[in-house]
Amino acid sequence: MIKEAKKGLKERLPQIETWPNQFPGYTITIVFPEFTSVCPKTGLPDFGTITITYQPDKKCLELKSLKLYFLAYRNLGIFYENASNRILKDIVAATKPKWAKVTGEFHTRGGMKSLVEAKYGF
Amino acid sequence: MIKEAKKGLKERLPQIETWPNQFPGYTITIVFPEFTSVCPKTGLPDFGTITITYQPDKKCLELKSLKLYFLAYRNLGIFYENASNRILKDIVAATKPKWAKVTGEFHTRGGMKSLVEAKYGF
Amino acid sequence: MIKEAKKGLKERLPQIETWPNQFPGYTITIVFPEFTSVCPKTGLPDFGTITITYQPDKKCLELKSLKLYFLAYRNLGIFYENASNRILKDIVAATKPKWAKVTGEFHTRGGMKSLVEAKYGF
Amino acid sequence: MIKEAKKGLKERLPQIETWPNQFPGYTITIVFPEFTSVCPKTGLPDFGTITITYQPDKKCLELKSLKLYFLAYRNLGIFYENASNRILKDIVAATKPKWAKVTGEFHTRGGMKSLVEAKYGF
Amino acid sequence: MIKEAKKGLKERLPQIETWPNQFPGYTITIVFPEFTSVCPKTGLPDFGTITITYQPDKKCLELKSLKLYFLAYRNLGIFYENASNRILKDIVAATKPKWAKVTGEFHTRGGMKSLVEAKYGF
Amino acid sequence: MIKEAKKGLKERLPQIETWPNQFPGYTITIVFPEFTSVCPKTGLPDFGTITITYQPDKKCLELKSLKLYFLAYRNLGIFYENASNRILKDIVAATKPKWAKVTGEFHTRGGMKSLVEAKYGF
Amino acid sequence: MIKEAKKGLKERLPQIETWPNQFPGYTITIVFPEFTSVCPKTGLPDFGTITITYQPDKKCLELKSLKLYFLAYRNLGIFYENASNRILKDIVAATKPKWAKVTGEFHTRGGMKSLVEAKYGF
Amino acid sequence: MIKEAKKGLKERLPQIETWPNQFPGYTITIVFPEFTSVCPKTGLPDFGTITITYQPDKKCLELKSLKLYFLAYRNLGIFYENASNRILKDIVAATKPKWAKVTGEFHTRGGMKSLVEAKYGF
Amino acid sequence: MIKEAKKGLKERLPQIETWPNQFPGYTITIVFPEFTSVCPKTGLPDFGTITITYQPDKKCLELKSLKLYFLAYRNLGIFYENASNRILKDIVAATKPKWAKVTGEFHTRGGMKSLVEAKYGF
Amino acid sequence: MIKEAKKGLKERLPQIETWPNQFPGYTITIVFPEFTSVCPKTGLPDFGTITITYQPDKKCLELKSLKLYFLAYRNLGIFYENASNRILKDIVAATKPKWAKVTGEFHTRGGMKSLVEAKYGF
Repeated sequence: MIKEAKKGLKERLPQIETWPNQFPGYTITIVFPEFTSVCPKTGLPDFGTITITYQPDKKCLELKSLKLYFLAYRNLGIFYENASNRILKDIVAATKPKWAKVTGEFHTRGGMKSLVEAKYGF
Repeated sequence: MIKEAKKGLKERLPQIETWPNQFPGYTITIVFPEFTSVCPKTGLPDFGTITITYQPDKKCLELKSLKLYFLAYRNLGIFYENASNRILKDIVAATKPKWAKVTGEFHTRGGMKSLVEAKYGF
Repeated sequence: MIKEAKKGLKERLPQIETWPNQFPGYTITIVFPEFTSVCPKTGLPDFGTITITYQPDKKCLELKSLKLYFLAYRNLGIFYENASNRILKDIVAATKPKWAKVTGEFHTRGGMKSLVEAKYGF
Repeated sequence: MIKEAKKGLKERLPQIETWPNQFPGYTITIVFPEFTSVCPKTGLPDFGTITITYQPDKKCLELKSLKLYFLAYRNLGIFYENASNRILKDIVAATKPKWAKVTGEFHTRGGMKSLVEAKYGF
Repeated sequence: MIKEAKKGLKERLPQIETWPNQFPGYTITIVFPEFTSVCPKTGLPDFGTITITYQPDKKCLELKSLKLYFLAYRNLGIFYENASNRILKDIVAATKPKWAKVTGEFHTRGGMKSLVEAKYGF
Repeated sequence: MIKEAKKGLKERLPQIETWPNQFPGYTITIVFPEFTSVCPKTGLPDFGTITITYQPDKKCLELKSLKLYFLAYRNLGIFYENASNRILKDIVAATKPKWAKVTGEFHTRGGMKSLVEAKYGF
Repeated sequence: MIKEAKKGLKERLPQIETWPNQFPGYTITIVFPEFTSVCPKTGLPDFGTITITYQPDKKCLELKSLKLYFLAYRNLGIFYENASNRILKDIVAATKPKWAKVTGEFHTRGGMKSLVEAKYGF
Repeated sequence: MIKEAKKGLKERLPQIETWPNQFPGYTITIVFPEFTSVCPKTGLPDFGTITITYQPDKKCLELKSLKLYFLAYRNLGIFYENASNRILKDIVAATKPKWAKVTGEFHTRGGMKSLVEAKYGF
Repeated sequence: MIKEAKKGLKERLPQIETWPNQFPGYTITIVFPEFTSVCPKTGLPDFGTITITYQPDKKCLELKSLKLYFLAYRNLGIFYENASNRILKDIVAATKPKWAKVTGEFHTRGGMKSLVEAKYGF
Repeated sequence: MIKEAKKGLKERLPQIETWPNQFPGYTITIVFPEFTSVCPKTGLPDFGTITITYQPDKKCLELKSLKLYFLAYRNLGIFYENASNRILKDIVAATKPKWAKVTGEFHTRGGMKSLVEAKYGF
């Protein structure tokens, strides 16, 4: 059990920074296979791969701040359905993209594997 | 042969529980590769992977009760075409989703492999 | 060379049996990787994987009789383009499905691999 | 939880039958990916692949009786380390081989996957 | 360097033969991973996989003559973009299909891999 | 069921021909994934991949006669353990190699997959 | 750190040459897995696979000049989002295609993998 | 950066428990793909798969306590070469096996992937 | 059929050149997946992957001349067992290595795939 | 062509640093798939994966300095057989290991792929 876990859906997380986009109409995909958070019910860690795809408008995700943002989930108590939806909300707020999609593919627990897919602007 | 197998399509199974959904318009996929039931004709076990995909409306599938629900098929005599359709019916009744899909991919029997795909709300 | 091979496209084959369907609007896929017949030109065996996908209406394919039906091709002289089309015709006659599709993926002969795809009701 | 599970390491299981070997000095490997038993601690099912390799002396494993023997573990409460060792003991008793090896590769539980390898006559 | 290579785009090649089709509305795919020709610029051989997909109308490609047709490229000087397009033109002339598609996937040259896709009747 | 199957372990099979070896001390491996015979108990076909590895002494296996030899198993009733051992015996008789090994890897039957490995001259 | 890296988005690069197209309506894909440039922020090299797909109108990409064009990125300081967009712009200028697409799939940095997809003429 | 990380090589960790072994001469392998610790230099998390193989003498590793032991590395500052060696030392102390081996396969950092293999009793 | 094929085992082939080795005791492996020759019996092309592994003594294989040497087989009539052995003989003559090994893995013909392995100096 | 490439086998490269080893008798493997240097003959870049395995005695390779060492090959003119041998010599000089092995697996050039394996202390 991980004792230091904070409560998660509304916890303040590090700012996601951006850089100004110079090209119109293209898409960026970022795959992060080292996502981990803490199950708020059992206190045990969850693991998964988060994939973000978006079409930037005026701003692009700055990767170093995105990584620090992801790291902040490490000791946060949050269900992974909620984590996936929150990541979408936070990157939409930061970059105001034409559209965005977040998928989370989580490791097997109790013999069951879960995938969550949340979309914005479709 | 498995002697304890009960008759299956109408057998009462454990309640599938739910938790209240907090985000609109996303999808959840659950993959369960340890599904097993009993062939009502031969008394021999069948094995397969059940995959559920659904868009929650007000309720999400609670995973622990879903697992107990799946375990109840272990000594139940039911054809796998019927099992796939019943699982769809039961999760629709429990969660009233926007839409849902159940696929069952079953192990080779007599040199033939079977897949069943049932849909609700498309 | 296989001496016992009979002539094939019109040869009478074992009856494909059915069982009454109880659920509307779902699909069944059956994969049979052990299909073998005889080339009517060379007398040499052909090998392939037959995949049937269909949406049952009132009747479903009974798998044991389907296997015996497939076995009857073992010493039958028939081109595999014709075999794929005949299988489609025979399962449509037996089950009267909403739609059906048969694909045959055949082993390399003379350095060339062949795939045949036949459809009904699309 | 599976209520009917019996206690396992010493439970009497179906007889493994044999047929007389006609060739010296060769080996047989049998892979059974549908092994399942019950964890005696949690009452939850375990799943795994059992692989037997042996060099027959006078007797070979009869496959149909071996399958019925494996099926008897389905509702038996036994740790998988013990199941692997018992299977080795039982096939050695039945066939008196030159040598034999049993490996069990079990599904992930609690994020950990286990393999057990037991040998006779090396 | 291959000295015997002839000049290629207009070279006369072996006749592609056909057989009369007996079924309407299905498709045939032929994969030939042993295609090789000669680069007219360097005199060095090119290698690739040619895939033909077509819906026959009244005629089907006879495979033995197709193989001899492919073999005729072995010492022919032709760029692979042109070879892919010529193969399409020649099989369309021979079989007059409802539609046809030829794809060529060629081995890495100078660290770059090329794919060419040509279509008729879409 | 295949009615024409003959009884198998002692049935006379086509002669395996050879050609004179010109190089010392090398090995040849031949993989045949289209092996099929008939189970003498059930009358149902078995399928497998036969792999022969040998070090030729004065004679090498002639591949066309080897293929005809393999084809003769198609309607022969023989257990696959015995088929593997017989193939070894027959190629040893035909080529008198320094050493030889035959492995047979057979398709799943009753949920169990079998491998047989027989050796000569080790 | 790579000291010689020049500044990148506007650096003059080698001319991409073309040859006259002879066939209408087909597509060409070129995969280059050896793309490497320098991160302008850290001075460390980036690596990726660039894939170009286009439908030529009157001109096709000449592969040797394309390779020299790619090599010019080796010591150029440019973010890979910008590199992908610039490559698209440069090949569109050189060949004036019906349409074109460039995808860049870049190696993991800081545990995150990036893909960029830019399109012209869709 | 992970602020709560403690210093690692000598930190006291949860006790690894055991259960009494009942069979001689077999081996157990445990694969844990969710290992994570903190780099003491950068404060960033490391990820890897730990594989333990051992031949038990009188005691076997109890899996639940092993998992809690692994979880204690989550916020521990330790190089992964040292973590692999410490895990070996701790399981040898707990179970006094005939022999044991620990391998750690760690995720790419700075474009480099590391594997560490430590052994006892060979 | 390829008309220009010359007779093969004793045909004079291009000289394999070498460069002086500067390091002792290491090995070099060269994989050539584009090997092709002509079957002297049928006049049809054979295809395969040739792999050379050797420990250089004073000389290393010069790759450009090796490629020209391989290309000379393109229109040569030679069985692939003989080709593999001849390649070994020719590279041993050219480089006088401590030891060398040539393996040829040839495409499926008549449903059978062949591998040949020849060694020198073991 | 890369104009800035320096001449390579004797060029001074960045110092490989070490840290003091604390455990006896284990091995470390480092895989670097982003190795690139320049062919001294053609001026074109080579690409490959370098794998180092060693048993540390008193010193371990410090990974950050190892990466800078690898980066120094980027614009160095050196054959990859020589690069592999030089890397071995340099890491042996830096760490004085019990034993070490360097393998280089290089990308296809002219249709041929090369592997080099150099060892110390075996």
